[in-house]
Amino acid sequence: MKMKIAVLPGDGIGPEITQQSVKVLQAIAERFDHEFSFEEAIVGAAAIDLMGNPLPEATLDLCKKSDAVLFGAIGDPKYDNDPEAKIRPEQGLLRLRKELGLFANIRPVKTYQKLLDQSPLRPERIAGADIEIFRELTGGIYFGEKSTAEDGKSATDVCTYSVEEIERIAHLAFKAAQKRRKKLTLVDKANVLETSRLWRKTVTNLSKEYKDVELDFLFIDNAAMQMILNPTQFDVILTENMFGDILSDEASVIGGSIGLLASASVGNENAMFEPIHGSYPQATGKGIANPIASILSAAMLLDHFNMTEEAEAVRKAVEISINSNVCTPDINKNSEYSTKKVGEFIELNI
Amino acid sequence: MKMKIAVLPGDGIGPEITQQSVKVLQAIAERFDHEFSFEEAIVGAAAIDLMGNPLPEATLDLCKKSDAVLFGAIGDPKYDNDPEAKIRPEQGLLRLRKELGLFANIRPVKTYQKLLDQSPLRPERIAGADIEIFRELTGGIYFGEKSTAEDGKSATDVCTYSVEEIERIAHLAFKAAQKRRKKLTLVDKANVLETSRLWRKTVTNLSKEYKDVELDFLFIDNAAMQMILNPTQFDVILTENMFGDILSDEASVIGGSIGLLASASVGNENAMFEPIHGSYPQATGKGIANPIASILSAAMLLDHFNMTEEAEAVRKAVEISINSNVCTPDINKNSEYSTKKVGEFIELNI
Ligand SMILES: CC(C)[C@H](C(=O)O)[C@@H](O)C(=O)O
Ligand SMILES: CC(C)[C@H](C(=O)O)[C@@H](O)C(=O)O
Repeated sequence: MKMKIAVLPGDGIGPEITQQSVKVLQAIAERFDHEFSFEEAIVGAAAIDLMGNPLPEATLDLCKKSDAVLFGAIGDPKYDNDPEAKIRPEQGLLRLRKELGLFANIRPVKTYQKLLDQSPLRPERIAGADIEIFRELTGGIYFGEKSTAEDGKSATDVCTYSVEEIERIAHLAFKAAQKRRKKLTLVDKANVLETSRLWRKTVTNLSKEYKDVELDFLFIDNAAMQMILNPTQFDVILTENMFGDILSDEASVIGGSIGLLASASVGNENAMFEPIHGSYPQATGKGIANPIASILSAAMLLDHFNMTEEAEAVRKAVEISINSNVCTPDINKNSEYSTKKVGEFIELNI
Repeated sequence: MKMKIAVLPGDGIGPEITQQSVKVLQAIAERFDHEFSFEEAIVGAAAIDLMGNPLPEATLDLCKKSDAVLFGAIGDPKYDNDPEAKIRPEQGLLRLRKELGLFANIRPVKTYQKLLDQSPLRPERIAGADIEIFRELTGGIYFGEKSTAEDGKSATDVCTYSVEEIERIAHLAFKAAQKRRKKLTLVDKANVLETSRLWRKTVTNLSKEYKDVELDFLFIDNAAMQMILNPTQFDVILTENMFGDILSDEASVIGGSIGLLASASVGNENAMFEPIHGSYPQATGKGIANPIASILSAAMLLDHFNMTEEAEAVRKAVEISINSNVCTPDINKNSEYSTKKVGEFIELNI
């Protein structure tokens, strides 16, 4: 297969980790006789510094004409603590999601036997946890109108959802549940929010088309608790943009490190693959960032194009590295392996 | 001291648990020679059933003319799964908070040595955790305009905050931090939300008046992760309404059971005390609900009126019950003690 992959390393540890997944994808191409071509472009704080724009048009164009986007991370502390900044790195990522129509962000959460002792949670609570979170990615309060009063004395964010936005991701979530353990949990705050009630109504209506899937509901506050108390109760979780952001970062503790969690963001025409962790500025350049989240995102990329065997080969190689203790310090405190070393080891095992 | 307390048992397990804290307050009145009078009123689903209104005027009036409100719980599943319901129990609670001007909801999270093994988290991660969450309670997306398009095809919730709303709770949080470990963490999503940027700016400005308090910032997604990874890093957390709802329910796992977590909701003129757990309809009438969250809310009530010794006496009695294994099953699976038995034991130890 021939595939054009846009690579957007972004900020902080983004470049270091993305380099490793590119190497792994190259090894896959070699072993399975594919032709993957890679083209890099800037985004985020890096792009603001260079062009004054967190998502330059050239970057967006490249993404649009590529088959897939491999994304690193975005964000820089110099913008976080400047509430007055008008241009911020995150705008690049948000606009990219919107322009590419990436309405569904899929975040799998799993445990590795070898890492059970790594989690802050008791091993017996998390063993066997296997969750897929479907987070809506181009709607809600992230993309609603934002404003500040002229006198600066108040600010507003608007959260809107349409039936159509809910349905398109709900279909994907139901279909994923059908291929898994046939359970779908909608997480919302229907006892308070009008948008949540629209989610509940729309998903309930849709469930008639998926009679083999058991649908249940949880309020987000309760879900945030249940995720820790009893994560094995979940199969597929469907939720809106902000709740999905919170819940999936929280769920990262189950696997023991956010450095293991990959994601796929898909739309009707484009697809992007990125770790769920951020740019982790304190670690930049130190060689301690875990490349596995990015490498597993590359595996999701392969899955997306039905290269199932290839994706399996990547996951297998990741497991070998974990089982052999070839790890970065986030999952093994005594590890002496750097980001690059872990990447190379995984590449060698492809 | 003479005090008039409005008792609003509410729905589900609300009445069972509230009964216990009333008994405990009566024991306190007796031992310390106070005069507490209690008057009950209906609220929530119970009030809808009886009067078609989740917050009857008589209930609101009673609360306004009382010194404090002791609240049980609210919510009934028959409304949760009916997105069309126009009248819902939660409206009663939300309106009550608004009408009484209860802008700050204070939720302490602590561990009990005896219960360390009860938590889904590893004991060494949580030992010594001692957090106070200040959740804004009468603003944000809870109280913004809500609407559904005429064709039913979309819905909107508006989130607004004013500088004034932020400042009044921030003052309380800074002051609490001054009396504790002098650290305040503002949790927001300033990389995405305009309201969050207003929070960050306003709280940063205010921090100049509290130079002895160290102020830091966390995005809500990261905070949801850090709460589990490393809860002992937190002292006072300040956050907006929705984030506070999610984060405090999540934080309940630290102590081992949400059945232990109390809260105080305070305003300029009124104060209300309620467990953070909900109406737990599956448990109603079974005698398995933990009365401790409600009893500790009564302790917060005493604290609020500077009855420090009295509050300590309640906390002490609660500790004795926990240490003596006189517990409901949520904190001791083999316990044969009912809600009432636990309440009576604590009452006896006042
Ligand atoms: C960087 C930020 C805007 C982003 C988000 O909130 O969506 C990140 O937290 C994520 O989850 O991908
Ligand atoms: C019942 C519900 C409206 C309420 C809230 O979300 O505020 C509850 O979850 C709480 O935290 O007190």
